[in-house]
Amino acid sequence: MAATLRELRLTAIADFPEVRAGDDLAALIARAVRAGGVHPRDGDVFVVAQKIVSKAEDRYVDLGQVVPSTRAIELAKVTGKDARLVEVVLGESARVVRAVHDVLIVEHRLGFVMANAGVDQSNVGPHGADRVLRLPVDPDASAARLQNALEQHFGVRLAVVINDSFGRPWRLGTVGVALGAAGLPSLVDLRGTSDRYGRTLRATVVALADELAAAASLLMGQADEGWPVILVQGLAWSQASRSARDLVRPADEDLFR
Amino acid sequence: MAATLRELRLTAIADFPEVRAGDDLAALIARAVRAGGVHPRDGDVFVVAQKIVSKAEDRYVDLGQVVPSTRAIELAKVTGKDARLVEVVLGESARVVRAVHDVLIVEHRLGFVMANAGVDQSNVGPHGADRVLRLPVDPDASAARLQNALEQHFGVRLAVVINDSFGRPWRLGTVGVALGAAGLPSLVDLRGTSDRYGRTLRATVVALADELAAAASLLMGQADEGWPVILVQGLAWSQASRSARDLVRPADEDLFR
Repeated sequence: MAATLRELRLTAIADFPEVRAGDDLAALIARAVRAGGVHPRDGDVFVVAQKIVSKAEDRYVDLGQVVPSTRAIELAKVTGKDARLVEVVLGESARVVRAVHDVLIVEHRLGFVMANAGVDQSNVGPHGADRVLRLPVDPDASAARLQNALEQHFGVRLAVVINDSFGRPWRLGTVGVALGAAGLPSLVDLRGTSDRYGRTLRATVVALADELAAAASLLMGQADEGWPVILVQGLAWSQASRSARDLVRPADEDLFR
Repeated sequence: MAATLRELRLTAIADFPEVRAGDDLAALIARAVRAGGVHPRDGDVFVVAQKIVSKAEDRYVDLGQVVPSTRAIELAKVTGKDARLVEVVLGESARVVRAVHDVLIVEHRLGFVMANAGVDQSNVGPHGADRVLRLPVDPDASAARLQNALEQHFGVRLAVVINDSFGRPWRLGTVGVALGAAGLPSLVDLRGTSDRYGRTLRATVVALADELAAAASLLMGQADEGWPVILVQGLAWSQASRSARDLVRPADEDLFR
């Protein structure tokens, strides 16, 4: 794979509009890309921020409508979080992994181990802090729909990654991570290939979609949502597509859950 | 920060030579960059693979010279690894975090929680599998020396990140991670800034150097070492430099160690 790669170009799509529930996100992206004079080519990858996908898919919850369960009230005390927010988090989660003051790490129903099940109170719109935004119902399916629609718009073969920012054990700071992917191998398996000296490589399954998600995150910024769509050009791969769900380590193979 | 970013370009430096112990790595990089017709500018970042830094710094150990301790022999049985390799790993480690069949995760003396303390048997040279390669003694210092020397070579202000590939809990596949950094903020702290709607953002410390390390890893490949140096152009930052050591989460703040 490496031998075909020489230069990677990431372009942030300028002047992206505020996304509203029900918007045709592919149409918004196509319009902004054309307005920016950017021309997607065969094999290009769009990395799209989770937040605008969730907004278009109307994944909002009004906390005013949420009645917290006993369990949510207990966890709210432990974490110092709003019990209604905790209730929404629990509704998105398979189980709680860690709960201490200021921290609520869960296993999202899709398998992602993450803070607050990805439920977000920032930048959800002008309706105030009482409105929160959940992850898309099925980010791989969202990515596949976007891929399909964007290929129609541009008439070229494209891939799509939906990214989010995750904290991590052992290291400080968040990094971009792939929640959904379509049209590329989220994991690239190099096992069985040899190094320069003929030894078989051991630990060489690369999380390609996560590295793309992190790269795009460098251009997206965090403090505002002005750059939620990044076009990545110059990446090449030879393996079959694999969804971002394949990036989730099965619980029974996980030493840290 | 985001507002000043529009396009990021990553260029893999072609025809990089095999690195030998004692080589002047900055001189090798400068020569390969010039030969490739690439022109670094103020604010550009070089991402350099850990392996070539370790080679230049002669961080080899000949396993034939290693006498494993009782503890190494025990851990070798548990993990199925060569007891001499385990001895080298222990010499690089503060403590063992997990040891099961095929897996030895330690806290490296620099704080990195990682497999095998980063000790590598692949691509270490034509001397066969009995020679292994450790991480640089102080990757932040290595990055600072490279930064300094490269700035002399090119007459512009540069930053340097030294990267490696790490596995992760919860997710499959490896991603590029920063072991050392100089000339840029490894962590960018956006806490206290507001989102579009005036709410203060909560969890917005971004691991900039790790995202750069992951982005560069997309171009480096894994199966050979043909592309160990990546030039990143177009990144902007306003915060003061922070070393990659700042990316290590203090053990007493870590819920998963």
